[in-house]
Amino acid sequence: MEEVQVHELARNIARALREGKPSEAVQALEGLHPADQATVFRELDRAEQDLLINLLSPDELGAILEYMPEDDRLEVAGRIELGTLSRVLDEVDSDVAADVLHELSPTEAEQVLGQMKERAEVERLLPYADTSAGGLMMPVPIVLRPWMTAEDAINLLRREKPDTDIVYYLFVVDENDRLVGVVSLRQLVIADPDTLIGQIMDPQVIHVGPDTDQEEVARLMEHYDLLALPVVDRDRRLLGMVLIEDVVDVIEEEATEDMFRMVGLSEEERALGPVSESVRLRLPWLIVNLYTAFLAGWVVSLFEESIAKVAILAAIMPVISGQGGNDGIQTITVIIRSLALGEIGVQDVFRLLRKQILIALANGVVIGGLTGLTVALWKGNVALAVVAAVAMVLNMVVAGIFGVIIPVALKLLRRDPAQASGVILTTFTDVCGFFIFLGLATLLLNWIEASG
Amino acid sequence: MEEVQVHELARNIARALREGKPSEAVQALEGLHPADQATVFRELDRAEQDLLINLLSPDELGAILEYMPEDDRLEVAGRIELGTLSRVLDEVDSDVAADVLHELSPTEAEQVLGQMKERAEVERLLPYADTSAGGLMMPVPIVLRPWMTAEDAINLLRREKPDTDIVYYLFVVDENDRLVGVVSLRQLVIADPDTLIGQIMDPQVIHVGPDTDQEEVARLMEHYDLLALPVVDRDRRLLGMVLIEDVVDVIEEEATEDMFRMVGLSEEERALGPVSESVRLRLPWLIVNLYTAFLAGWVVSLFEESIAKVAILAAIMPVISGQGGNDGIQTITVIIRSLALGEIGVQDVFRLLRKQILIALANGVVIGGLTGLTVALWKGNVALAVVAAVAMVLNMVVAGIFGVIIPVALKLLRRDPAQASGVILTTFTDVCGFFIFLGLATLLLNWIEASG
Repeated sequence: MEEVQVHELARNIARALREGKPSEAVQALEGLHPADQATVFRELDRAEQDLLINLLSPDELGAILEYMPEDDRLEVAGRIELGTLSRVLDEVDSDVAADVLHELSPTEAEQVLGQMKERAEVERLLPYADTSAGGLMMPVPIVLRPWMTAEDAINLLRREKPDTDIVYYLFVVDENDRLVGVVSLRQLVIADPDTLIGQIMDPQVIHVGPDTDQEEVARLMEHYDLLALPVVDRDRRLLGMVLIEDVVDVIEEEATEDMFRMVGLSEEERALGPVSESVRLRLPWLIVNLYTAFLAGWVVSLFEESIAKVAILAAIMPVISGQGGNDGIQTITVIIRSLALGEIGVQDVFRLLRKQILIALANGVVIGGLTGLTVALWKGNVALAVVAAVAMVLNMVVAGIFGVIIPVALKLLRRDPAQASGVILTTFTDVCGFFIFLGLATLLLNWIEASG
Repeated sequence: MEEVQVHELARNIARALREGKPSEAVQALEGLHPADQATVFRELDRAEQDLLINLLSPDELGAILEYMPEDDRLEVAGRIELGTLSRVLDEVDSDVAADVLHELSPTEAEQVLGQMKERAEVERLLPYADTSAGGLMMPVPIVLRPWMTAEDAINLLRREKPDTDIVYYLFVVDENDRLVGVVSLRQLVIADPDTLIGQIMDPQVIHVGPDTDQEEVARLMEHYDLLALPVVDRDRRLLGMVLIEDVVDVIEEEATEDMFRMVGLSEEERALGPVSESVRLRLPWLIVNLYTAFLAGWVVSLFEESIAKVAILAAIMPVISGQGGNDGIQTITVIIRSLALGEIGVQDVFRLLRKQILIALANGVVIGGLTGLTVALWKGNVALAVVAAVAMVLNMVVAGIFGVIIPVALKLLRRDPAQASGVILTTFTDVCGFFIFLGLATLLLNWIEASG
């Protein structure tokens, strides 16, 4: 559905609600795919959403929740009255229900669970963190045994009629419920009916434990092109399976997280979220930024006398520091992304450093040359041009080095390599850029004044 | 497989190759999952890779190519002798084969195609761009008809024995080969054998044309939680299907592209790629950066006289501009990501502006206050403190405004909102930051000098 249509539908529904025509509002929504219902719902304001929550049936509400981004889902679920919530959660995937229950107080969660039909299934997922394999997994609706025939297996499917489409892979467990293989539904259908599952199954099943982090789950499923990844306990007993649909969301979340963290933003920030929320989330980092900027300012103040004599230093100084920042932020972005995608590891640090220093030198010769030339043409001061050119090359090398070291060091410290790395980097490139340029200029001040 | 294991295996294979024990090298590789074979292969140097290319069978090479990132795949395929290449491409998915053929000269491509068994299938994909739905799609191995029974359909599957696992959705076409519905393999298996496909199929099939951009394909598949998306021509005739596995790669690529473009990097840049490549890719933007930085430097030079009188202005000036840059880059990151995920559109620009100005004012009051306080305590100059505080608030508002306007304007101009937006933004925040602070300071220079 196009954005424009979403906006128009949301406006129509809002109008119907305001004008006291609830059935019109519900009707307008009902014709849509639940994914689009969720998009339209999110466009409504809080009061309108609350009206709709009371008008929709538990399974309609469930479908909408299922298709919402996680933060919005938890927020909306928190506004549903507890009695209704248990009926709504019976309609959603168990991993989604568990996420919602995690947000409630223990007493509330107990109350909601107590009224749920799917209680047992959801309860098994509750011990795991939202961002672990255990938190992402779904219960496995049907398992096969190696001693079944393909026909037995198909009959089992016909009898059980699993109501989701997630049975494209069927997992095979032994007499102790241990995972021993996997068969695709296609293999089952095209196999000779008498073939034993044990013969057609693939015994090499890639699997994870429930505590595996979602980033690792996403990396594995992407690396091996898996549609579903089984989760097993220490004895290899099958606990559940993670579906590719849920991992797609994880991949987007992790990419957002990296982008946001690099610039010191919280991943909770939303483009159209409340102002107060953005202020609360951004202010602490901006304060940290402010004092790192003052640190760079303090370095400049050490050279106040030189600047008082040759004020044009103040105009060239930000060119040196800014260019170092640009160059370093490019390096850091490449490193962070490659670390996140598993293309490189901390053991590559020396190769990376060597490469970045070479790049900085090669680019630095060109950029330093242009800097010197531009300063010479602009101010006609050869000494100043030489100082600017040399400082530029040195600061670009500094930027390349810190661009590698900062994310790798954060990774070694078991922190997210992206965490505020942009802020840390520009502090280094500013402080070093100012110090190198103003330091050199001060050493050669007589020459600069004579050339001016 | 762990990184450490990959490195060790790659070293062992390299040693075996160097010591003239090719069968050992091949053996070490053969026990692995093709995804891991690809990872190990990429660790080898060019000469080692070339040796292996001659040692491996076409289907082993095909499996390795299939699991490589696109750029590496095209580079390696370009080194395979054309006669072998046609046998290798017979073993890979048709969309992968088409991508490889796109990179060859027309004569070479014709030569390779001429020797391929799967020629017809691959030829149908050739007209489409790599980054369109047509370039991502696979041929549909089996289609159903509405007048078949579930039993007919299963018998058809048994007869045709499609050799891939991609048949979890089966598309239904009418007598004119027009797409009319979709059935999941699960529905087929659990249905009563006499049921007509026309009765169990879902006639609402979300589909795209072959020219739909891959970003839109990814957005649709994610939005509707689809495992496969059919591609149809203008008459709704089925051309192929895009699989979720391929879209996962697209989602990662697009996220990388946004992160890289924001900082003026090319998406071709690789952490461990050749130095010359990185220099070639980065240098043009760094030169643009340099002259935008000189523009900011020129603004500073306009106030040379004020700086000569009160040199400490040079120390406070980068605090104002840097903080504006930090604040603006946060805003721009949120906007770019939300545009990419389809959470907001250009029509939201006024709401976004209003929000960002409010955030900037709220944060600005705190940050401006702290700036004033810090300057007052550090330099004991009340006038300077007031100028710094006011300039800080104004520059943060400027940063908020440009943080919204730059990506939205790029989107309206049908450019990528991320394209170099970080560079454009810091140009504005530097130029405005210097101008506002030094301009105010110059207006109030007497007061500042008297307070000092």
